[in-house]
Amino acid sequence: MLNDYVRPEQPSKEDVRERVRAEQSKLSTYGMKIKEAKLPVMVIFEGWGSSGKGSAIANVIKNIDPRFFQVATMDKPATPDELRKPFLYRYFIEIPEAGKFKFYDSFWMNEVTRDRIEGRLNDEDYEKRIRSINVTERQLTDNGYLVMKFFFHISRKEQKKRLQGLLADKNTRWRVSDADLQENKHYDKYLSVYDKYLKDTDRSQAPWYIIDASNRKWAELQVLSYLNLGIETAMKNQSLAVPILQNTFPLKHMPLLSEVALDKSLTDEEYKERLDELQAELHDLHNKLYRKKIPVVIAYEGWDAAGKGGNIKRITGALDPRGYTVHPIASPEPHEKARHYLWRFWNRLPKTGHIAIFDRTWYGRVMVERLEGFCSENDWQRAYNEMNEFEKELADWGAVVIKFWVQIDNQTQLDRFTDRQNTPEKQWKITDEDWRNRDKWDLYEDAVNEMLQKTSTTYAPWYILESVDKKYARIKALEIVIDSIKKAF
Amino acid sequence: MLNDYVRPEQPSKEDVRERVRAEQSKLSTYGMKIKEAKLPVMVIFEGWGSSGKGSAIANVIKNIDPRFFQVATMDKPATPDELRKPFLYRYFIEIPEAGKFKFYDSFWMNEVTRDRIEGRLNDEDYEKRIRSINVTERQLTDNGYLVMKFFFHISRKEQKKRLQGLLADKNTRWRVSDADLQENKHYDKYLSVYDKYLKDTDRSQAPWYIIDASNRKWAELQVLSYLNLGIETAMKNQSLAVPILQNTFPLKHMPLLSEVALDKSLTDEEYKERLDELQAELHDLHNKLYRKKIPVVIAYEGWDAAGKGGNIKRITGALDPRGYTVHPIASPEPHEKARHYLWRFWNRLPKTGHIAIFDRTWYGRVMVERLEGFCSENDWQRAYNEMNEFEKELADWGAVVIKFWVQIDNQTQLDRFTDRQNTPEKQWKITDEDWRNRDKWDLYEDAVNEMLQKTSTTYAPWYILESVDKKYARIKALEIVIDSIKKAF
Repeated sequence: MLNDYVRPEQPSKEDVRERVRAEQSKLSTYGMKIKEAKLPVMVIFEGWGSSGKGSAIANVIKNIDPRFFQVATMDKPATPDELRKPFLYRYFIEIPEAGKFKFYDSFWMNEVTRDRIEGRLNDEDYEKRIRSINVTERQLTDNGYLVMKFFFHISRKEQKKRLQGLLADKNTRWRVSDADLQENKHYDKYLSVYDKYLKDTDRSQAPWYIIDASNRKWAELQVLSYLNLGIETAMKNQSLAVPILQNTFPLKHMPLLSEVALDKSLTDEEYKERLDELQAELHDLHNKLYRKKIPVVIAYEGWDAAGKGGNIKRITGALDPRGYTVHPIASPEPHEKARHYLWRFWNRLPKTGHIAIFDRTWYGRVMVERLEGFCSENDWQRAYNEMNEFEKELADWGAVVIKFWVQIDNQTQLDRFTDRQNTPEKQWKITDEDWRNRDKWDLYEDAVNEMLQKTSTTYAPWYILESVDKKYARIKALEIVIDSIKKAF
Repeated sequence: MLNDYVRPEQPSKEDVRERVRAEQSKLSTYGMKIKEAKLPVMVIFEGWGSSGKGSAIANVIKNIDPRFFQVATMDKPATPDELRKPFLYRYFIEIPEAGKFKFYDSFWMNEVTRDRIEGRLNDEDYEKRIRSINVTERQLTDNGYLVMKFFFHISRKEQKKRLQGLLADKNTRWRVSDADLQENKHYDKYLSVYDKYLKDTDRSQAPWYIIDASNRKWAELQVLSYLNLGIETAMKNQSLAVPILQNTFPLKHMPLLSEVALDKSLTDEEYKERLDELQAELHDLHNKLYRKKIPVVIAYEGWDAAGKGGNIKRITGALDPRGYTVHPIASPEPHEKARHYLWRFWNRLPKTGHIAIFDRTWYGRVMVERLEGFCSENDWQRAYNEMNEFEKELADWGAVVIKFWVQIDNQTQLDRFTDRQNTPEKQWKITDEDWRNRDKWDLYEDAVNEMLQKTSTTYAPWYILESVDKKYARIKALEIVIDSIKKAF
């Protein structure tokens, strides 16, 4: 892209100045407009050292009310904690809220290309990252984000001139880093890595804009006019649904809930004996897991009163509390609701060697959010694929991903609800909402069936826990967790 | 993709047979459904020699009524005529009509990977092709096509076994080609080229399905179930608008029509003298063009009675009739309307060394089709980018692309209409529709302005021909054509 890039014709100095003013005044009106439209805008600046990204950001934000934007500088190395999360993590948690601009002084391109050039990424890992980035950028735009990506391009000669200019003055000398000098010295090598990255991540939903940065004012005009056009296009697209993607993930065949036999049970003695054995085994595995730095994600979904809580307790009962977290998932907070719906789960990922247990999960999207109309039909239809993609990221990172559906029949739920209602110390566990959800049993059952069919992948399969006999379900869960962890070793 | 591909678990023989039957009967009902929904379905089979593509196609079509599908075998080399068209041409003209299946026994992947392996495509040209293919597949899906791409994957050992089996029997020996043997011999080399191609063209709108083709029945099950799922998804998507893409093409700044001074004119003497000179020059250039094999596309749009016909005549007057074609563009025929709206223009491209002049063009999409409601708002809003992409293909192929807007003012049109009405030998030139269009002058003017702003690229610019004085417009057109061709040399 950098080699065969058609440079747009640069207008005269006066023309540039006049058009910059016009674009600036347009942009200044967009702050309020994107706030009203709840449009989140990511503006990513990448490019050569000394190509003027910093001053371009400074000039662009000058025209926006400070309440409407944030700036993030992402070119610092990952912290030790961040290194124990997936590559995408530290970027994903930085996405803006709906209705705000966020400007990024370099983003994942910077990290990936540096790692590539400095030999820290082999072909296979490079391609994994490219896939992760493309999937994420598409997920963001599908979910209403505007993602604008600018690459500031200057020639080797121009870069050299600027670096020498900075070095010549003792007040600016500090701004030239070793990395900048390396880049200029091995310009062609960097060019080919940048060029490949730009090609590999140039997608129709989030295309690259190559900015001719040979002149600062002219670069500013290009950024401003592309940005304004991009905002106009995104405003038009906001009301549109997004095409559902085809599923290309390897699926495991799942039964319908109505086909699941629920008469399985254990005697108290069988239960106690197995429980002790399995918890001891899991305890040992947890230590091993920690040493091998394998992260584990366990997702629980199921009917109200199916016995999720008690089931989770039997897992955590075997674990060292320093090595796991249980995340009870309720409705999202306002700052969570203002972002991509997976954001709050990205934020709760375990570190390597740790276990995260989710009591209810991202699958709320295709159950409660679907049935209560908390998201659009297009949103939940798209979500099956987005969750398969999310879990693929976790699996590729090396995580063990286990998903449980805790299953009971309608009558069992009624019995347990009635029992809760009639037992004073259990009454807190039952709410009007539980009774309302019960009325929608059939709709939920359809939704669950569709979810199981569409999201049980070979790398993150669903397991049904028959929980009319809770003891049976607990033992089965422990066995599956143990098996899955063993397979990962 | 082939290296790290997660093979789905193969069910038992009986399961496969049973599920194949279920998928077959589902597919057999889809013929009528896609006809009713006017959904065009492209099913592309690529893969290793002897991987069983042919028999898979045979088994799949068995379940579809012959009125609903066609099969195209695309692995023959391009004809000499096809070689004088852009690479995409011979594929694009083979797209199916709305409401029909078309099965392809190999498609552009086959040609590109062969050319790559056999050294006929350098890096740059390979990347151009990848870009062309990605753009086209996206354009097709954006315009309602379902594009399913299957790659039949077998191991080197399995392929060898099959080839030896075929060679051992004199009745099947002929089915083993030299190319197949080469492929098996240099399996790893082919694998890496295939793998790269699959990665380079795996896009969310038209993803690749890797088919585990180690067993024929199992391969058939995979194809059938992916195909059925794909059709179901496409049916759901049919009612959805498609997001408008951001413009990343280098645009030329264009004036508004109201800013164009129309008082330019030539005396009869000036006109005659310049006309003779310029036509002589163009005549010479046409010969040179032919020898240099440069194709030229000249597009004319403009107000009714602006003088397009007479202007075109002054161009063709200078040309050897064997080297150009004028295409008058009226409303599309039914078989044209049933396909992507650019199909009829792909079909009318010049050969290298030839000139194609379009009297009205693909820009009808954003003028008459927009204003008369012949396409949806989403269709014409998407079209600006699609046309920039179409013309980029032509420019990358080496074509000179020139676009004229023939401009007059409202009063001049009224005068010319009145003159036509009152002059018996000119009456055929004026219809009720012309008068009706006149009433929408302001709407058309807005549409033309938007078109000029959004589609005047550096590689296919618009030129405004001031045609109140037709002589002036003719001379200007000739000058621009001559200049543009000269620049291409």
